[in-house]
Amino acid sequence: MKPVILVTNDDGIYSNGIHSIINVAMNFGDVVVVAPDKPQSGMGHAITINNPLRLNKVNLIDGVKSYSSSGTPVDCVKLGIFEILQKKPDLLISGINHGENTSTNVLYSGTMSAAIEGAMEGIPSLGFSLADFDSNADFEASSIIASKIIKKVLSIDFPKNCCLNVNIPKLSFDDIKGIKICKQANAFWNDRFEKRIDQFGNDYYWLSGEFCDANQDKETDLFAIRNGYVSVVPTHFDMTASYLIEKVKSWKL
Amino acid sequence: MKPVILVTNDDGIYSNGIHSIINVAMNFGDVVVVAPDKPQSGMGHAITINNPLRLNKVNLIDGVKSYSSSGTPVDCVKLGIFEILQKKPDLLISGINHGENTSTNVLYSGTMSAAIEGAMEGIPSLGFSLADFDSNADFEASSIIASKIIKKVLSIDFPKNCCLNVNIPKLSFDDIKGIKICKQANAFWNDRFEKRIDQFGNDYYWLSGEFCDANQDKETDLFAIRNGYVSVVPTHFDMTASYLIEKVKSWKL
Repeated sequence: MKPVILVTNDDGIYSNGIHSIINVAMNFGDVVVVAPDKPQSGMGHAITINNPLRLNKVNLIDGVKSYSSSGTPVDCVKLGIFEILQKKPDLLISGINHGENTSTNVLYSGTMSAAIEGAMEGIPSLGFSLADFDSNADFEASSIIASKIIKKVLSIDFPKNCCLNVNIPKLSFDDIKGIKICKQANAFWNDRFEKRIDQFGNDYYWLSGEFCDANQDKETDLFAIRNGYVSVVPTHFDMTASYLIEKVKSWKL
Repeated sequence: MKPVILVTNDDGIYSNGIHSIINVAMNFGDVVVVAPDKPQSGMGHAITINNPLRLNKVNLIDGVKSYSSSGTPVDCVKLGIFEILQKKPDLLISGINHGENTSTNVLYSGTMSAAIEGAMEGIPSLGFSLADFDSNADFEASSIIASKIIKKVLSIDFPKNCCLNVNIPKLSFDDIKGIKICKQANAFWNDRFEKRIDQFGNDYYWLSGEFCDANQDKETDLFAIRNGYVSVVPTHFDMTASYLIEKVKSWKL
């Protein structure tokens, strides 16, 4: 039996990135798409609790059952599993994101949060991101890389409650130096807000900023992608700082 | 000099929980409040990228500079640091949340995501949640516990890039058995969607479900709170599954 592959993203169901990954995934199994009906970048692990969700069948690619949802990427994963499939798929793929999700961006990213939600459900889950924010970015190299990784993941016993955060540099396939297994970089946004005034004289603020690599560690996803490699970070959802448990105990709260 | 304490939450600036923690925090320093202008439960680590944010001064409690924002809890932290204070506070407090944030709820919770954002900024950060969803919940015991923890945290050298996830059981202070330092439980929502039909004949879906403790581990926050203890989980934002790096390397992707 062909594996069932659930596909989602955070750039929305009509983005080029999801279109590219659907075409790859179709080579490996029966693909079902549940993705946001509008861009949902930066939605992190948000879920919709206090509002109803809409779910509409759409024609995306022949032979692929596809639904758009008014919800977040994580809502889409939940709707895909519990409403559309009514079972867990064999593989969950999120992406291909327009823009990289290295480092602490894993927390802000709707793409990666969808993959993490898959991991929470015990589904082998992959998040793919291309380091190119352009809506017409070239997904050719990313598609080859994704195909290679999907093939491997479907052939092995994937660790439970884990997903892979895959980031692909903005290079042609021939210029990509290889695939590196990495840890999440300790890098941050140096934020600022642009204050502007609307037509009624009221202030409003736009989030802006630059991304700063704090420690320049060579074992990280950020270092890999800056140096021409695909980065793969095994990612889980246990946020316990285990190394601090004894220290906090010593505080005698 | 008195410490500067930034306070936020995800239930909104007019909730009782934030009111309670402001009253506690005022005993320890100069309090500045930046909190959502509406409930933002389940917003996780969402940030507002593609829309402007509003920020309005409000009168909440005499002597406390308070601002409501149209953004998410994480937006509020960023606005508080980079726009209002224009420096990092000495302490960030998020809560007191109406409802517990044990286990994997740390990922969905706007309250805890605000505390994690504080940790990312290198600020000693605390998230408080009471295991009672009632908007008129009794925050008396929680306030005593929070006071105790804030006092300790301000007296020590707090570990960098960490926050504490504090959950308080729905009990009177005398009935609380103590404070336990724990790890995040491996528990999940067994989700389902209620399908309904609107007045125009169109389907809509509400997220529903029960919370299931997967492994009943006695060292977890969920076990502590179910057994009458306050749980404290040291929480960080490195989501790397480090124990899997060698395994994934062995796949030779």
